[in-house]
Amino acid sequence: MVSCSLARMEDKIRTFGTFGDTGKGGVTRFSLSPEALAARAEFKKRMEAIGATVVTDDMANLYATLPGSEALPAILTGSHLDSVKKGGNYDGVLGVLSAMEALETIARERAPHRHPLTAIVWTNEEGARYEPAMMSSGVVCGKFEKEKMLASVAKDVPGLTFGEALAKSGYVGDAANRLSPKKHLALIELHIEQGPVLEAEGFDIGVVEGVCGMVNYEFTFIGQADHAGTTPMKYRKDALYAAVKTIQYLHDELDELDPALVYTTGKISAHPNIHTIIPDEVKFTLDARHYNPDVLRQVLAIIEKIPAEVVGCKASHQEAWSRRSVAFSRELVDIIEKSAQKAGYTNKRMFSGPGHDAQYVADVIPTAMIFVPSVDGHSHCELEFTPTEACCKGVNVLIQTLLAIDRQM
Amino acid sequence: MVSCSLARMEDKIRTFGTFGDTGKGGVTRFSLSPEALAARAEFKKRMEAIGATVVTDDMANLYATLPGSEALPAILTGSHLDSVKKGGNYDGVLGVLSAMEALETIARERAPHRHPLTAIVWTNEEGARYEPAMMSSGVVCGKFEKEKMLASVAKDVPGLTFGEALAKSGYVGDAANRLSPKKHLALIELHIEQGPVLEAEGFDIGVVEGVCGMVNYEFTFIGQADHAGTTPMKYRKDALYAAVKTIQYLHDELDELDPALVYTTGKISAHPNIHTIIPDEVKFTLDARHYNPDVLRQVLAIIEKIPAEVVGCKASHQEAWSRRSVAFSRELVDIIEKSAQKAGYTNKRMFSGPGHDAQYVADVIPTAMIFVPSVDGHSHCELEFTPTEACCKGVNVLIQTLLAIDRQM
Repeated sequence: MVSCSLARMEDKIRTFGTFGDTGKGGVTRFSLSPEALAARAEFKKRMEAIGATVVTDDMANLYATLPGSEALPAILTGSHLDSVKKGGNYDGVLGVLSAMEALETIARERAPHRHPLTAIVWTNEEGARYEPAMMSSGVVCGKFEKEKMLASVAKDVPGLTFGEALAKSGYVGDAANRLSPKKHLALIELHIEQGPVLEAEGFDIGVVEGVCGMVNYEFTFIGQADHAGTTPMKYRKDALYAAVKTIQYLHDELDELDPALVYTTGKISAHPNIHTIIPDEVKFTLDARHYNPDVLRQVLAIIEKIPAEVVGCKASHQEAWSRRSVAFSRELVDIIEKSAQKAGYTNKRMFSGPGHDAQYVADVIPTAMIFVPSVDGHSHCELEFTPTEACCKGVNVLIQTLLAIDRQM
Repeated sequence: MVSCSLARMEDKIRTFGTFGDTGKGGVTRFSLSPEALAARAEFKKRMEAIGATVVTDDMANLYATLPGSEALPAILTGSHLDSVKKGGNYDGVLGVLSAMEALETIARERAPHRHPLTAIVWTNEEGARYEPAMMSSGVVCGKFEKEKMLASVAKDVPGLTFGEALAKSGYVGDAANRLSPKKHLALIELHIEQGPVLEAEGFDIGVVEGVCGMVNYEFTFIGQADHAGTTPMKYRKDALYAAVKTIQYLHDELDELDPALVYTTGKISAHPNIHTIIPDEVKFTLDARHYNPDVLRQVLAIIEKIPAEVVGCKASHQEAWSRRSVAFSRELVDIIEKSAQKAGYTNKRMFSGPGHDAQYVADVIPTAMIFVPSVDGHSHCELEFTPTEACCKGVNVLIQTLLAIDRQM
């Protein structure tokens, strides 16, 4: 069985870790930044060195293609090279490095394949400088209007638009090169799990069946600001206590739903937030995710049951944003699972909590994802880590998956 | 019965409201600011106009004394002229204006009194610019070291100390003029209630029996910051949920104690406070007040029962500060109550939640306080309001109280 090279993966991880190196084990590599452009140049150089042809589309997404033996649509694999501020060396980039290593292994070993094989790099997945996240896969897959995206202004550089940065990048190509069902057969994205499950439960590989849908709400409680020392309890309208009661209600009710549901009250603010004043306005957020839209509908029903008045305070909520669940191709998920089993790797079917470019692609061509474990579940931080041995297991599953797609689809 | 003048009180309130006028119904009049010095000058001018002799002590506290008919210790009444930022026209200043009006009424009506009568203005009660609050009464009554207080740095003027501002004020006098049991018989401080009780229950006058003791704690919960989308509920250590559970526990337990207990969780913070991250550190404050130290001891016992671990998070707490309960002179409290009854004003015995200069004086000479209602309980804001008619009821009780002390003590 064709296997990737630990030494080559080690080199790839080390080399790409220099582009935007924070000096503390991570990188800051905003999309289209000089650091990101240096990483793209390295990608292009290395892919051309193994005989791939590299083109870009009008959103500067990169496609590095090894020809196949027949005139067939290409099989895609890849991810993104950009990171969040002080991000890690694995989120996104590992999917690109794995695509590179898979194609390099197949080329070096002269593994036969009928379809062209394409390593893809998506522009601006994180949305760390230019919102929204998954911008270019979104444009290519018809989720976002291109003109709106070009007008997106950098969060950290006043006045700079994504469009200007794109034009300056030197990577704008032909829209005809965009991913499309005519030219592309399927896409596999390898990614770190970004959570603790695979490591905690001792699995090598996550076989990703889809991306969880999500609802995000903001809750607001309006009470009355009175002095802590002068207002008897019976006269109070304590907005923090209203929020506390509601968070407890949400825990009580949501814990009764499917155990795969995750929900988070991550953000809270109180006004005036002074220890001697009863809070008159408290806000908190709820983020709830599940792969089954029915469960998310149950979450919404629980939210709707919150009364308009809680401990004398006016209670309201509004949807901040939501994301529907995405189911990946059952055929591809089966192929990934069999590829992992054949390689002797323990594996678990699971859903992704975070979003990925693959979820937009899934609406256009058959798509699935492979997860490798994240040590301690860390992600979006300099502590993000997956041992190269564990990465290589992912690459080997990816290679077997690409070759199986090549044979079967 | 000698009564104050509504027109004169109206004039006093209006005139003193111009010193630091915010233009929105309130004042910003930090201690020793130009606005506060202008108010002092007005106090001095008006008190000298009715035949009082004005001296200051070494903390710039002002003493304006009408001579008595015998060589006896003086009876004191007064409060403070400084305000918080965007404070109201009543907190503190009403106690000074009432003292002025009481002495003016007694002087004009030639009401006989054996003891000298002194209107006092305490320097820096609010501590809004120079901490701590009740600074100068604290120094005079042996609660604070003077040198430390002189070194207190302005919160809003880098490098400026209280000592420098004091020296420049022109109001530094002899330490021999300080309040003392040899020279002073008793003190009565009139103040707005700063809470809703008198208005809500329909009382004209609060007969203040003392100042509530207070405990202030900060609670900290340390959990683990994980991604909202990748961490199953069973792996979570959610510091906000630990805080929520603890706030609910405090409500459940504290509500079983004496109904006069007031407690407030006014301040909360979460880290990193991002809607997609499980909070790893949450802090909140508890302020609890009661006149009976035994009840506060019960509060402490409830706090101590919080386990070291709450929903997987490390829980800890520390005392931020505390204040013991202060009981006012029973004799004076009785005199105030009888004075109110004689004047035909409805009245209620109560304890003060907020602190006042009078609580420090209570350890030195017999002391008590008179409260007048606060409309809607507002205080420390521009909405602070008490109708002049209601203020005058307070002044009339003050006049009768001063004359009763003069006769009886």
